[in-house]
Amino acid sequence: MKSLVLERQHELSLRDFPIEREEEHLGPRDLRIKLHTVGICGSDVHYYTHGRIGPFVVTAPMILGHEASGTVIEIGSEVATLKVGDRVCMEPGIPDPNSKATRLGMYNVDPAVRFWATPPIHGILRPTCVHPEAFTFKLPDNVGFAEAAMVEPLAVGVHAATKARIRPGDIAVVLGAGPIGLVTALSALAAGCARVYVADLATKKLEIAESLAPAIVGIDAGKQSIAERVKADTDGWGCDVVFEATGSPKAAARVFEPLAPGGCVVMIGGQPDPISYDAGAAMIREARVENIFRYAHVFPRCVAMLASGTIDVKPLITRTFSFADSVEAFDIAASAPAVDVKMQIELPQ
Amino acid sequence: MKSLVLERQHELSLRDFPIEREEEHLGPRDLRIKLHTVGICGSDVHYYTHGRIGPFVVTAPMILGHEASGTVIEIGSEVATLKVGDRVCMEPGIPDPNSKATRLGMYNVDPAVRFWATPPIHGILRPTCVHPEAFTFKLPDNVGFAEAAMVEPLAVGVHAATKARIRPGDIAVVLGAGPIGLVTALSALAAGCARVYVADLATKKLEIAESLAPAIVGIDAGKQSIAERVKADTDGWGCDVVFEATGSPKAAARVFEPLAPGGCVVMIGGQPDPISYDAGAAMIREARVENIFRYAHVFPRCVAMLASGTIDVKPLITRTFSFADSVEAFDIAASAPAVDVKMQIELPQ
Amino acid sequence: MKSLVLERQHELSLRDFPIEREEEHLGPRDLRIKLHTVGICGSDVHYYTHGRIGPFVVTAPMILGHEASGTVIEIGSEVATLKVGDRVCMEPGIPDPNSKATRLGMYNVDPAVRFWATPPIHGILRPTCVHPEAFTFKLPDNVGFAEAAMVEPLAVGVHAATKARIRPGDIAVVLGAGPIGLVTALSALAAGCARVYVADLATKKLEIAESLAPAIVGIDAGKQSIAERVKADTDGWGCDVVFEATGSPKAAARVFEPLAPGGCVVMIGGQPDPISYDAGAAMIREARVENIFRYAHVFPRCVAMLASGTIDVKPLITRTFSFADSVEAFDIAASAPAVDVKMQIELPQ
Amino acid sequence: MKSLVLERQHELSLRDFPIEREEEHLGPRDLRIKLHTVGICGSDVHYYTHGRIGPFVVTAPMILGHEASGTVIEIGSEVATLKVGDRVCMEPGIPDPNSKATRLGMYNVDPAVRFWATPPIHGILRPTCVHPEAFTFKLPDNVGFAEAAMVEPLAVGVHAATKARIRPGDIAVVLGAGPIGLVTALSALAAGCARVYVADLATKKLEIAESLAPAIVGIDAGKQSIAERVKADTDGWGCDVVFEATGSPKAAARVFEPLAPGGCVVMIGGQPDPISYDAGAAMIREARVENIFRYAHVFPRCVAMLASGTIDVKPLITRTFSFADSVEAFDIAASAPAVDVKMQIELPQ
Repeated sequence: MKSLVLERQHELSLRDFPIEREEEHLGPRDLRIKLHTVGICGSDVHYYTHGRIGPFVVTAPMILGHEASGTVIEIGSEVATLKVGDRVCMEPGIPDPNSKATRLGMYNVDPAVRFWATPPIHGILRPTCVHPEAFTFKLPDNVGFAEAAMVEPLAVGVHAATKARIRPGDIAVVLGAGPIGLVTALSALAAGCARVYVADLATKKLEIAESLAPAIVGIDAGKQSIAERVKADTDGWGCDVVFEATGSPKAAARVFEPLAPGGCVVMIGGQPDPISYDAGAAMIREARVENIFRYAHVFPRCVAMLASGTIDVKPLITRTFSFADSVEAFDIAASAPAVDVKMQIELPQ
Repeated sequence: MKSLVLERQHELSLRDFPIEREEEHLGPRDLRIKLHTVGICGSDVHYYTHGRIGPFVVTAPMILGHEASGTVIEIGSEVATLKVGDRVCMEPGIPDPNSKATRLGMYNVDPAVRFWATPPIHGILRPTCVHPEAFTFKLPDNVGFAEAAMVEPLAVGVHAATKARIRPGDIAVVLGAGPIGLVTALSALAAGCARVYVADLATKKLEIAESLAPAIVGIDAGKQSIAERVKADTDGWGCDVVFEATGSPKAAARVFEPLAPGGCVVMIGGQPDPISYDAGAAMIREARVENIFRYAHVFPRCVAMLASGTIDVKPLITRTFSFADSVEAFDIAASAPAVDVKMQIELPQ
Repeated sequence: MKSLVLERQHELSLRDFPIEREEEHLGPRDLRIKLHTVGICGSDVHYYTHGRIGPFVVTAPMILGHEASGTVIEIGSEVATLKVGDRVCMEPGIPDPNSKATRLGMYNVDPAVRFWATPPIHGILRPTCVHPEAFTFKLPDNVGFAEAAMVEPLAVGVHAATKARIRPGDIAVVLGAGPIGLVTALSALAAGCARVYVADLATKKLEIAESLAPAIVGIDAGKQSIAERVKADTDGWGCDVVFEATGSPKAAARVFEPLAPGGCVVMIGGQPDPISYDAGAAMIREARVENIFRYAHVFPRCVAMLASGTIDVKPLITRTFSFADSVEAFDIAASAPAVDVKMQIELPQ
Repeated sequence: MKSLVLERQHELSLRDFPIEREEEHLGPRDLRIKLHTVGICGSDVHYYTHGRIGPFVVTAPMILGHEASGTVIEIGSEVATLKVGDRVCMEPGIPDPNSKATRLGMYNVDPAVRFWATPPIHGILRPTCVHPEAFTFKLPDNVGFAEAAMVEPLAVGVHAATKARIRPGDIAVVLGAGPIGLVTALSALAAGCARVYVADLATKKLEIAESLAPAIVGIDAGKQSIAERVKADTDGWGCDVVFEATGSPKAAARVFEPLAPGGCVVMIGGQPDPISYDAGAAMIREARVENIFRYAHVFPRCVAMLASGTIDVKPLITRTFSFADSVEAFDIAASAPAVDVKMQIELPQ
């Protein structure tokens, strides 16, 4: 049984890989899970193409992948809520249960969190993994493995929409129509927005965005001013929420322009360097800015929304590869095809 | 031109009615509106059948109706946002703009609010009315007059869902499948719930509820325990929000039973007398209870949601009468047919 | 070394008591603590006089006491934040760290919480106890053992004030001038209130309340209407927050009367039976009701406020007994002297 | 009767000044007020020394002053809450009562607000003014005119503390020990903080800060790292709130450093240009950033807190000038003496 190993920057191989003993040990509250579907995330690709993300540097071979679904094949002695054969999805970050942040209910900001495919922690493009029951979630029958492997990116959007404290009837703008921008648009809509504008420079991505729901409206940011368009549609008032999902310093510098008085900006996209912040524009609106980091407590919520149909992520899965083709899959993902949103890899069952 | 006049308890007539001069005066920020569609509300029917609601007693002939849409036919000298010919819906309560509650943004709890069809204020089952621009909302082309006359009851549900501070993926229970229960269920779903249970004793109403969306699940409260059902579906945890929309003291006395720790109860249904409150059940859950009164600032949000399709109220409009048949319409409404949700009256154009 | 044992209703004895082995075992994240000062709480007295509180029945001899401070005398192998000799106070409830409520940060509503001096869990009127590091808090040099043993009741008031979401300049009413009412008044003041009314029937208790701070104003509820007094002082508007700290059904039935539109009621006092709830009064104010249960995450906050002087609980400690006199102390406490707020017992060092 | 007129940049004169007729007209809900005490604000001084603040340029002679108290000398026909002879303080900004922002309760972000001593609106260093009842607040007997003229700057601090949503026991850092920094420190303390650090480069200002309350702790930012100091005192966790009150881009660029996970930054200090924003530091903490603009609805709260003694601003009033010496007062203020916090001018009575 092989794993997809990032040997070093620019070099991937599908090969046998010995996982350290500790990771293989099944504790009393742990599960052993056979992986089924793993999505390719921009961060996986970035480790492949750049060998690092900020302070996290690949200094030794590391298995990639952190968006995953699978099947429980063994359970620890104290596991109470799951059993062998359960179909599940898994939250990739495991915090220190004794940290102050975790006890306060904010485990995502625990500095000691261990996160799949973030050096030196291995990802799950491999046959099996051991994972805590507390971060593993059972799938209802009507949620497939492919959708379930979308829960991880969806969780970012749902967490962002939660932090925005959307009220029913809000108008939102999402900057960026990449995978995170699109799950954020779906989440904002599910969370109560009457209308969600998605702004991007790529026409093809805007078409995909608009195809997701009638209440999603694309703005070609190369052709029209986002702020002017939003203000024209809202009697000059502006939008209630802006989600920054590009990670572009240029886009981030202008987040307040379309925002209404009393509105909220949610910073989702990572920024390697300090950005420009228009404090004057923020003040005259009394803007609230929420800076989010991954997610906390939203996986079961995402699964429930997929199950009841209030969010549908299937249109975002645009290509599926077999595990044998996973190096090729990463090469295609690295080329960032305009027609693709999310690519996934299916492991042999 | 006639009006529908409640002469006294049990006596309605369609007749000419002189409206006091002050109400007919068009101020600089007022509009004159030709009425198009008016919904029949339970409170209208209650004045007809009982002659009073709590402290509000019908002591002189009063025109009924407060759920309305129409067309602007004249504008005051300072009106800036609307023009003759605009199709609109109207908020039926006008607060004192100088009251402390209004200045704080909570105009619905201003004791001086003047509300249509609440003695001694006339309603709008009449040819025209004068209304302030600030409480009149333009309809987009794709929102019809019938839907627009549903904005008033919908606003109650949207306000309730807003006060609940629903987070995406919440599970809600709505007690009562009457018109307010159903708009609340739709609002809770639009506001982010993954699933909304609607509980009632009437099978027919539960069928209507379930037909509205796949994520709405009926509970026949005569056949199964609401709390047991909800807990069985949530691993014993309970639901995040309970909306009490029956106005029944018996139902209200048990609102905490299905609620999860940290959950919220929203009291919507009016109660003429003090009710029984299970303080112990509320405490061990640290329940938050929001008591709502009508709505504030939600009409334009409702219109936006109808326009973008994130809420569809058309299935709730089950019967339409001509204005000439409006007395008959009230008699039918007073019989509370199980198959009907909302009946409306269309005025001659 | 003796413990104060409630043998059964009405019978206390100071005697040797074997604590079960499990409780004496020092786990890796546990501390062994020598008790110094223990406050007498109304619940301790109630077990003594009634043998039960609601569903919790004393069926076997149980050590009383849960408001405690002491000194660390032994530490587990993984303890990182405390050392032998540290002066500390302790949170008396230990939740299941793996429960859903705990993980969400609401450990106080975890049904599996084990709480000192709540059958069958022993209290700490005994020489030593073993307690988890996570629920033990170091005292700065300027916080004495007596004050530290007040942190437990103070935590109830601080938690109540936190849940109320007091804004600077709010006006609050506290119903009840017992120990919990007084710590709530101090907490509400520290949390930003401009003025706190404390209402009670006992003149002596109102004098104590008013002596605590110039901004605390007593209302003799037997001589004047609370609502009338508050409205007279606020131009008819009412107060922003009402804290119900009597546990009296009669007082609880009228909590909305002094409340302003948009105000908040916090239910602190336990109620054995359902109470009367004036839903109409709650609705026309759009009241928010917070039902609280003990506290969560506030002990270190209380210690910090005692240390910096923003709250001073020393005036509430009205009598101190030696451990040898602790049976007598309980008999005096059971007689509820009007001049006493909090009685404490000092253990031999 | 003379006024203090800023003729143009660098030129002040005390002279007769004709106020436009409209401003002198007493409407039905207006008051005529004889001015008593007026504080000198940094913005008044800045107009004097620079002739402009951002887009607001002095192009014609303008009366300065906006921090004011006085006595009602005439009332409009519909004034209900105030009478001739009442001692009052006044809110200097008057919004459009019909704007959307005002109706939502956020009148401070109404773009149409008219604010004293902001071109082209005159300030109140003049004998009398006409002001709306709704923005004029009666002083209790124990609040003097000097304190009352401090309500305006205090309101900024109280609004900032309100927006921070301080919870009892929070630790705050205020960047900047100028007048706004100090009222913010007092407000944060009154709002529930256990401890407030005030950081500045000026030793004298830190001494003043520390003299205000034992729970205020100065940090000499030239001698020690703010973040290191705060983390050392909080077991590495950081503070709950950072208030940026310097207006210095350099200070603003580092606001997240001392902040704990889940903490809040409040941006108070105006910034003429975009600032540097450390998005990465904000994200890993999931920081919330509140950008504030003046204040709304806090004047009566400030008056209540001064009256009950929960905030004392008297130590901040370090010098008082007669109106005849007001040009000299501005020259002294422009030199920014280290020993002064707030200078005030008393008008002849």
